[in-house]
Amino acid sequence: MDPAKLLDILGNENRRKIIQLLAGRPCYVSEISSRLGVGPKAIISHLGLLEQAGLIECSVDEQRRKYFNIANNMRLEVSVSPYAYTVKLQDTAFDREKNGEASAQKEISAREESSDFFLKLSSRLKELRIRQEELAQMQQQLQAEYTRVMDHCLDLIEEVVSNPVECELLFELLKNETTLATLCYNLRLHPSIVNTNLINLAKRGFIEYNIKNNQYYWKIRETGVENE
Amino acid sequence: MDPAKLLDILGNENRRKIIQLLAGRPCYVSEISSRLGVGPKAIISHLGLLEQAGLIECSVDEQRRKYFNIANNMRLEVSVSPYAYTVKLQDTAFDREKNGEASAQKEISAREESSDFFLKLSSRLKELRIRQEELAQMQQQLQAEYTRVMDHCLDLIEEVVSNPVECELLFELLKNETTLATLCYNLRLHPSIVNTNLINLAKRGFIEYNIKNNQYYWKIRETGVENE
Repeated sequence: MDPAKLLDILGNENRRKIIQLLAGRPCYVSEISSRLGVGPKAIISHLGLLEQAGLIECSVDEQRRKYFNIANNMRLEVSVSPYAYTVKLQDTAFDREKNGEASAQKEISAREESSDFFLKLSSRLKELRIRQEELAQMQQQLQAEYTRVMDHCLDLIEEVVSNPVECELLFELLKNETTLATLCYNLRLHPSIVNTNLINLAKRGFIEYNIKNNQYYWKIRETGVENE
Repeated sequence: MDPAKLLDILGNENRRKIIQLLAGRPCYVSEISSRLGVGPKAIISHLGLLEQAGLIECSVDEQRRKYFNIANNMRLEVSVSPYAYTVKLQDTAFDREKNGEASAQKEISAREESSDFFLKLSSRLKELRIRQEELAQMQQQLQAEYTRVMDHCLDLIEEVVSNPVECELLFELLKNETTLATLCYNLRLHPSIVNTNLINLAKRGFIEYNIKNNQYYWKIRETGVENE
């Protein structure tokens, strides 16, 4: 799924409410409509969009009534900082039938009563929630450090460059290794100017290149120092 | 900032493009307008929204021209799975002036040349990017395990409960510890029914309660087993 599409979907409050409801339990259209206080026609149109995007799926119960449920595990991460905007979408298709289930089921009967096993799994769920929280905190700290280090790099760049183009080039390369063509495009500069400056920076030991798929990728020189 | 508001903002493609542009470098309205091929009037209205939300801020250069830049570090995480929909927004206000900068600056002059220090910081940035990637992978795995364990719990619930209300209650409590009032609201059941079933489940050792702020919080019983 395209992350932009998911952001478009999540940009609507009613669609967010529908997802929230379905993450609680599978629902019929009529339930969703009454919970949200929104007409069934609008709900059906939102559901259509969500289904098309692969976020939800539709099943039929014994009375042949359609109900909807979340189709997948998805994680969307949007990170905005002065030096980076990233949108990551991770999508884990289930192997519900294949994975774990069968083997774990065997394990129980061999090992212990359902009720004990239930309590253990429940505490595992709690652990997982705590771990998720910890990882989120760690990511926040990383992001803050990234911005701090980047701030610092920009100060240093001003001390080491000999002209404004070099400054722009080092700034671009700090964010990512990249090709001449991309640099020319991003900076709106002629290839000959960019190339001359890249070569000067390389001579002074600031940058180097890799060749991948017959393309030159410029990057900040790696110093081989383990810890800063 | 309200995460719902951020999702509303990110639901618009042009606003996403503006954020992306500003994360590259601070920009004037005219630059944004020409890069996006969107009239300045529309751009100004988007910028107003972004500024109001605290995502960007506006400064004035030496020629008294206004430019915009990202105001903050923000991480938005949306997780959708069959048993959970969570939206987390982390917001790190900068202490750019206070933090690091000054002390680190001193460190350089004492320790080494700007150019060496720049190369070291650059490799630190790379490390941070790699670490961010690793954490994102870990979170994806946690989410998948959460769904798997939850699937499993639901199977076990069916074996251990003696009626459908107990089943609903255990399912709710697996997701979070909660009060009688919230359970009644979520399940649309009368408090007396919910209470009777909670007591039965507690007698059979499945659940217990904590008292916080004079409220009873029901939860799945903790077994005190370290690893499952």
